Amino acid sequence: MNTSTLIAPPALVRRAEQQDTQAIQALDSAHYMHPFTDHADLATRGSRVITHADNIYVWDSEGKKILDAMSGLWCVNAGYGRKELADAAYQQMMTLPFYNSFFQTTNVPAVRLAAKLTSLAPKVGDRSFTHVFFGSSGSESNDTNVRMARRYWDLLGQPQRKVIISRENAYHGSTMAGASLGGMSGMHAQGDLPIPNITHIGQPHYWENALPGESRADFGIRAARWLEEKILEIGPEKVAAFIGEPVQGAGGVIIPPETYWPEIQRIVDKYGILLIADEVICAFGRLGHWFAYEQFGIRPDLITFAKGVTSGYIPLGGVMVGNRVAEVLIGQGGEFNHGYTYSGHPVACAVALANLELMEREGLVDQVRTDTGPYLAQQFGALKDHPLVGEAETCGFVAGLVLVKDKEQRTMFDPDLSVGMICRRHCFGNGLVMRAVGDRMIIAPPLVMTRAQIDEMVGLIRQCLDATLAELRTKGLLA
Amino acid sequence: MNTSTLIAPPALVRRAEQQDTQAIQALDSAHYMHPFTDHADLATRGSRVITHADNIYVWDSEGKKILDAMSGLWCVNAGYGRKELADAAYQQMMTLPFYNSFFQTTNVPAVRLAAKLTSLAPKVGDRSFTHVFFGSSGSESNDTNVRMARRYWDLLGQPQRKVIISRENAYHGSTMAGASLGGMSGMHAQGDLPIPNITHIGQPHYWENALPGESRADFGIRAARWLEEKILEIGPEKVAAFIGEPVQGAGGVIIPPETYWPEIQRIVDKYGILLIADEVICAFGRLGHWFAYEQFGIRPDLITFAKGVTSGYIPLGGVMVGNRVAEVLIGQGGEFNHGYTYSGHPVACAVALANLELMEREGLVDQVRTDTGPYLAQQFGALKDHPLVGEAETCGFVAGLVLVKDKEQRTMFDPDLSVGMICRRHCFGNGLVMRAVGDRMIIAPPLVMTRAQIDEMVGLIRQCLDATLAELRTKGLLA
Repeated sequence: MNTSTLIAPPALVRRAEQQDTQAIQALDSAHYMHPFTDHADLATRGSRVITHADNIYVWDSEGKKILDAMSGLWCVNAGYGRKELADAAYQQMMTLPFYNSFFQTTNVPAVRLAAKLTSLAPKVGDRSFTHVFFGSSGSESNDTNVRMARRYWDLLGQPQRKVIISRENAYHGSTMAGASLGGMSGMHAQGDLPIPNITHIGQPHYWENALPGESRADFGIRAARWLEEKILEIGPEKVAAFIGEPVQGAGGVIIPPETYWPEIQRIVDKYGILLIADEVICAFGRLGHWFAYEQFGIRPDLITFAKGVTSGYIPLGGVMVGNRVAEVLIGQGGEFNHGYTYSGHPVACAVALANLELMEREGLVDQVRTDTGPYLAQQFGALKDHPLVGEAETCGFVAGLVLVKDKEQRTMFDPDLSVGMICRRHCFGNGLVMRAVGDRMIIAPPLVMTRAQIDEMVGLIRQCLDATLAELRTKGLLA
Repeated sequence: MNTSTLIAPPALVRRAEQQDTQAIQALDSAHYMHPFTDHADLATRGSRVITHADNIYVWDSEGKKILDAMSGLWCVNAGYGRKELADAAYQQMMTLPFYNSFFQTTNVPAVRLAAKLTSLAPKVGDRSFTHVFFGSSGSESNDTNVRMARRYWDLLGQPQRKVIISRENAYHGSTMAGASLGGMSGMHAQGDLPIPNITHIGQPHYWENALPGESRADFGIRAARWLEEKILEIGPEKVAAFIGEPVQGAGGVIIPPETYWPEIQRIVDKYGILLIADEVICAFGRLGHWFAYEQFGIRPDLITFAKGVTSGYIPLGGVMVGNRVAEVLIGQGGEFNHGYTYSGHPVACAVALANLELMEREGLVDQVRTDTGPYLAQQFGALKDHPLVGEAETCGFVAGLVLVKDKEQRTMFDPDLSVGMICRRHCFGNGLVMRAVGDRMIIAPPLVMTRAQIDEMVGLIRQCLDATLAELRTKGLLA
């Protein structure tokens, strides 16, 4: 191998106009089983074929330009078309495309990325993040968390500490364990879930679960104490860990009251149980910090990450292992019988390093925290004046609004009307990707989004809300 | 974006002599938690840093050249340094680095790869593979299998069919479900495993489990009938599926007698249960076929794949869905509530397509089946004349030999002596990667390996066996 092989040739990029949409749709329907999809339904309409992307925009095979307010799926933090990441992948593939880390071997990108990630996670009190365990996704990494938390208690001579407490409407991935940790009833209804020793408490969802007249602060404390009630119900000596997303993502961008996480920390400390922060969505600038725990007053023992670590350009996930756990797992010796072929994959790690360096160089995390995040809060928050919008709130670069029948009375639409899906169709039709979770419309834009692009996006959202309102009125579903 | 951005710059490749081994080892020890590793032990010796690779060789940070007879970890089928794969990654990252397939959207590489994979899986009897479900690893894909098999029976109105039968010493990944399906006692001992409704039968391991004087053929039938006994013990109406690796890999390259799989097929047919072939190791030419079921006389309903599909250059895994399952899941409609962010990742799929095209163009699968596979069988088989070798057998491009104290009496060494580990150390010392599973030494070379390289490898193996023998004699462990 010589360095001349390290130059990629010019590409024959297939552009929208070169794609034969119908041919791709036919192959898609014949052979590709999509995630979370009703294929009988999909076959009747045909998939939308996304062909290329740049910055915050994607194009479909009909040449339609779409503003991607969901960053792919909460992951393309650095935006599309970043040559630095493609270069990093190319060069690492030509240098060392794969090697395992099982048999006392290692590789440079995995080591450098582990060191880099620990340097981005600030110490809080007596807690620091010393080690990183790698997988290829958030799902795999939550399996790692369950096994690691139980291994920790085994080594401490408390093998009866097996129970992981999670929350209803949480999302922690789609493996058997991930879906069990998650609190999605639709997922639990398939495949004999949840697996044992995983249990759930209510979510800190002020809009849905607060009592009439209850303040956000009071509700936050009350919701956190559901954890204490559950611990006492199970018996503290049987509880291994509590897991939660700092802000629930797939559940519909549920931003907890400010009082919630500090009270959770008090409770896990009181009973000595581990705290696992699932930051698959929240880390890497999404909320304006490298890691979201910085902002919520918590000191997690384990952090799940994925998505933003590579801006989604290549599959990578992992667990940030806090000193409390690392000292026991490493200090007491013996083998932790767990790991993946692609743990520490050199190409995935090289792309992650390039991504983190790019984000640092461009100051994207600070930009979200101090400039575009607050601007988004202001502009998105202004949507509350729309007749369909019950609430509209943001946290860094995630945001959600709820579509309501009557905002004064806080009346929701009949779920059978699928008003969220109606709105989503208008979004796609108007060149905007916005996700519907029931009647909550949510976004998580690329962190490179500028103030001007925020204006463009919020303008599109308003247009889609108007179109939804018009359709509802035409159909006689709204006065 | 214009096409000029699709040319990667020359790379600054970090070569062995540029790496500071001690600095990397220190960072490794401080921050990188390896898979399946005793870190207290590792810290005393320091990791070997693998820095670059080409063809069938890897180099460490001290400049040592090592023949990689394990293909990374059963995955680098096309060998290292393949520019076509780096080009594919680069160009796809610049075109569309990520998009999800959740919300009625799709992307071209995922569709093309699904179509390509189904075209490589020949129809057997009334079974064909119509659809592909993607994840990022074999582990994730075995979680998909468990959920899909149970969903299939739910849709057919037999929700009580939940039990998956697997085998002792099987390996099916490291998620909670994967490790449960696997039959590794060390993994079951950590993390509250196995999860419910997964059970195990004995493995078809002639060397360890045959009766004195029993023929391979008779043992194969007997071992397969353990499945029938287990089905009857559980009750056939409660069994969802049987899962097995055509040839057990991580268990130590356990090649079943020829009679085994046809008898398994007879039994699963008799009771109507699904057959899942875990071909994470065996597919993509490893045994001389695109898929291993072709060679074993079986008609699986689901096939797990990963590793060789991309030659390990990028994480990708998935499930080949047979028509029996696909017709129910798709035909009966409704959503299968399962999937991963990176399901159908465009870059992973583009690299897989380039890898499969490269393997086709170079005829690697045929080469293994008709030329280098038989040559390996001959040359590796000849190692049986070595005083330490009890048996030595191959199947395509996997091979295993067993180190024995007395080959006439079939006496094994005391496991506490870790003779396999002694041999593995001599392999590394002599520039050869060979894996030890207990006292079985196993290999799975890149499929590009030539006859001359087979000679080189077998010569190195013999040298390492001699060194092991000498050490055992010096230590008085062998006459």
